[in-house]
Amino acid sequence: MSLLVIGSVAFDAIETPFGKTEKIIGGAATYISLSSSYFTKEINLVAVVGDDFPKSKIDFMQKRGIDTTGLQVKAGEKSFFWSGRYHNDMNSRDTLITELNVLENFDPIIPEAYQNCEFLMLGNLTPSTQKLVIDRLKERPRLVVMDTMNFWMEIAMDDLRQTLKMVDILTINDEEARQLSGEYSLVKAARKILTMGPSFLIIKKGEHGALLFHQDEVFFAPALPLEDVFDPTGAGDTFAGGFIGYLASTEDVSFDNMKRAIIYGSVMASFCVEKFGTERLENLSQEEIQARAKEFMKLSQVEMLLV
Amino acid sequence: MSLLVIGSVAFDAIETPFGKTEKIIGGAATYISLSSSYFTKEINLVAVVGDDFPKSKIDFMQKRGIDTTGLQVKAGEKSFFWSGRYHNDMNSRDTLITELNVLENFDPIIPEAYQNCEFLMLGNLTPSTQKLVIDRLKERPRLVVMDTMNFWMEIAMDDLRQTLKMVDILTINDEEARQLSGEYSLVKAARKILTMGPSFLIIKKGEHGALLFHQDEVFFAPALPLEDVFDPTGAGDTFAGGFIGYLASTEDVSFDNMKRAIIYGSVMASFCVEKFGTERLENLSQEEIQARAKEFMKLSQVEMLLV
Repeated sequence: MSLLVIGSVAFDAIETPFGKTEKIIGGAATYISLSSSYFTKEINLVAVVGDDFPKSKIDFMQKRGIDTTGLQVKAGEKSFFWSGRYHNDMNSRDTLITELNVLENFDPIIPEAYQNCEFLMLGNLTPSTQKLVIDRLKERPRLVVMDTMNFWMEIAMDDLRQTLKMVDILTINDEEARQLSGEYSLVKAARKILTMGPSFLIIKKGEHGALLFHQDEVFFAPALPLEDVFDPTGAGDTFAGGFIGYLASTEDVSFDNMKRAIIYGSVMASFCVEKFGTERLENLSQEEIQARAKEFMKLSQVEMLLV
Repeated sequence: MSLLVIGSVAFDAIETPFGKTEKIIGGAATYISLSSSYFTKEINLVAVVGDDFPKSKIDFMQKRGIDTTGLQVKAGEKSFFWSGRYHNDMNSRDTLITELNVLENFDPIIPEAYQNCEFLMLGNLTPSTQKLVIDRLKERPRLVVMDTMNFWMEIAMDDLRQTLKMVDILTINDEEARQLSGEYSLVKAARKILTMGPSFLIIKKGEHGALLFHQDEVFFAPALPLEDVFDPTGAGDTFAGGFIGYLASTEDVSFDNMKRAIIYGSVMASFCVEKFGTERLENLSQEEIQARAKEFMKLSQVEMLLV
């Protein structure tokens, strides 16, 4: 059941119509591992930070059951920093600052104790780094999930194609699916992408939910209609963390179980956007998660007699 | 179980990235009544056309069980005509031509045999005309569903507010819900609109599905992911027709049954967009409808054990 998570652990500074933050912790691997920690306990993190990253936050991750042996802390260097401003509709944002810092020369070293992981979650990073992680695992994990973004499609498409061939599940958003496939229709886009390597494709549509494609099957999970989306940062990573955390905890990678995993991913994402940054993910209870899952079921489930 | 449908019966000329049509039949009441005719048989139509409207199309409606006694044919006048061009994403369109013609002085006369209808579907028309129909019914129908659009919010908001107070269900799209309520969040928008008269609100999100709000409850039905949306014209009206047709056939206006009605509305809309205009709605079989409903269930239903 062990889960290996790789991705950025970083600082973010966020502006939304509801306010703005100072530098707070963020990064794909932070959201993924925090989110998955509500489902499974053997979580191994591979990432890099500078010595400006607060030790208290690393301690907190450990308290949540996340093994940080693989988190490299680079003396005299600074952590990756991203700053952005969301527009009023919360669906689009401007990047204000990107400082790669330690991420520029990130060498993802896999501690020996992390070998033989069953589940691998490749958070958004350069595709070549994601590939390196797979290459460095002596045994291929049972399930490899990869997140990526449009940026890599623009500057590293060849690497991206190489890495795609090695993964089981790709998670991208609708615009990225269109860009990667050259198809506007998501059904056609999915069909093309499923010939590029992954046998499952998750298309994240933000407030419009998520689609899971596999062979000729398709499943859709809605997002919870919320009064306010306070801060969408990390929602996609939180979704991925809930998704793979649930799969790891159940050790069942069937299509039917992936449907449930997508519901749990959506549940976790619905919490994430309620507060700035990782705040809402830091102290959830199992009761809250189960209650939210019931809301999702009420939202989308219907009994019908069909002949 | 009798259903009274009011709205436009008209000509459309449509351009999409897939092609363009000559003048073909369209209009809200045409789509609504054709769609509902697959569910219920006592359908009474109130509308107006000019003598340019093909008698063969009126005959066809009658063959589908639609009573056209209330369809006024104005000698020497022309039918309402709309022409539009869809953009590549199919989510936006430009209106090229709008000729009101007979619709300009439409007086919705209710034939005596149409009195005592149980279900009333007010297709998109001036709000004052919609109100007139309610006023002219000696007994209030069991369920009044009203469709409207942003145009009336801009030029006839007072009339719209008056009419809203008299209906049970309002169907609008997400942008219209935002405009009517002044709220961006659809949850907040729904809460406000539910104080304006209707006790149920359906927000149509096109390819992103539909939401049903009632008191503190909310239900979401996805749209079927399609290879191609050939022509979205009439999809919203077709949805409304399937919705109210199913309710009329089951005579059950509970929230739970409305969920099923929304699935059937979505089923019918998914057929509508497969061909230009009303073409796909003209010869569906019950087997096709049931098979499509099963696809919707597969798409969105999941079994979960929650504690």
